Amino acid sequence: MAPKYKLTYFPIKGLAEPIRFLFSYGGIEFEDFRFSQEDWPKFKPNTPFGQTPILEVDGKVIHQSTTICRYVARQVGLAGADDWEAVQIDAVVDTITDFRSKIQNYFYDSDPVSKEKKKGSLFKETIPFYLPKFEELVKNNGGYFVNGKLTWADVYFVGYLDYLNFMAGVNLLEKYPTLRSLCTTVLELPGIKEWVAKRPVTPN
Amino acid sequence: MAPKYKLTYFPIKGLAEPIRFLFSYGGIEFEDFRFSQEDWPKFKPNTPFGQTPILEVDGKVIHQSTTICRYVARQVGLAGADDWEAVQIDAVVDTITDFRSKIQNYFYDSDPVSKEKKKGSLFKETIPFYLPKFEELVKNNGGYFVNGKLTWADVYFVGYLDYLNFMAGVNLLEKYPTLRSLCTTVLELPGIKEWVAKRPVTPN
Repeated sequence: MAPKYKLTYFPIKGLAEPIRFLFSYGGIEFEDFRFSQEDWPKFKPNTPFGQTPILEVDGKVIHQSTTICRYVARQVGLAGADDWEAVQIDAVVDTITDFRSKIQNYFYDSDPVSKEKKKGSLFKETIPFYLPKFEELVKNNGGYFVNGKLTWADVYFVGYLDYLNFMAGVNLLEKYPTLRSLCTTVLELPGIKEWVAKRPVTPN
Repeated sequence: MAPKYKLTYFPIKGLAEPIRFLFSYGGIEFEDFRFSQEDWPKFKPNTPFGQTPILEVDGKVIHQSTTICRYVARQVGLAGADDWEAVQIDAVVDTITDFRSKIQNYFYDSDPVSKEKKKGSLFKETIPFYLPKFEELVKNNGGYFVNGKLTWADVYFVGYLDYLNFMAGVNLLEKYPTLRSLCTTVLELPGIKEWVAKRPVTPN
């Protein structure tokens, strides 16, 4: 019997959307459980390290969003054909995570002075450093991040994009046609296309 | 023929030490190339994303320290017996990375006011949150992080420890006997014991 999957997260795309994309790509049913911001203190003590998303697989809990993605990617055949492909995917994924963390570090700063300072380095250094490199990488790999074929690195990037754009307050891919084209490719994939059409509408 | 490995990093333990531990555990020879801080601007442009360590495998570059660890862990049989073990290891590793990032975030802050503020939350919230949970996890898993057996999650944690203690400025494990015992277990492993005896002496 197929395992029963329950994904628990805030009612946003955020860190859970790449997981939802991967399940949808693989045609795997999952319960998309969303709790409201006010209910978080109620759920937090039941998570392994006070963080969400968590995924329950037949009741057994997995935590850490990237770990969950890699696990689901294995189930749906997007985790690389061999160790060498897997390592290339992992390196891209960790680099996307670094990029995301820098944007989050700016966005969630509650001190206006320090936030403004971070905004400067985000827009003058971080974004102009990472995005041209991502663009070049995808251009050199036949339209995908790794080895000219779809892997979970692509789904991870595209699944985060609304959240990243929301936090940055701009369309990050405006000047990057190859990355925009990768987005179209991923969003047109059977499964993901249906998911995007039916998912709850949220800004982030 | 066995691949030729070259690890490139600063002349410290830092992010490279768990990789050196994993190679040493597996009895795999590697070139431990260390450049001086002053030479970093010379090496930086040759790294995929301006970061180090990088690992060359027969001249092909892998970047991202955690990705490199997972790759070497696969070569030395510490990456888990199946998908479910791998996912548990990954979750622990990502959580150790979170913990490490919070300590780095404090340590590398160049603004004395903001650094002092971070120090407060590091010692009042972060450390007292993570370490008791790690202690409990290892206690509940027969002395290891995952499934009562040695995996790269253990080597990752112990390999970072000098660096973490250096940044925090304290002996983080003072109150955690189970974690100290895990340290002893890892540092006594054949291969790792020899590495620690012969490695360059550095504070961090």
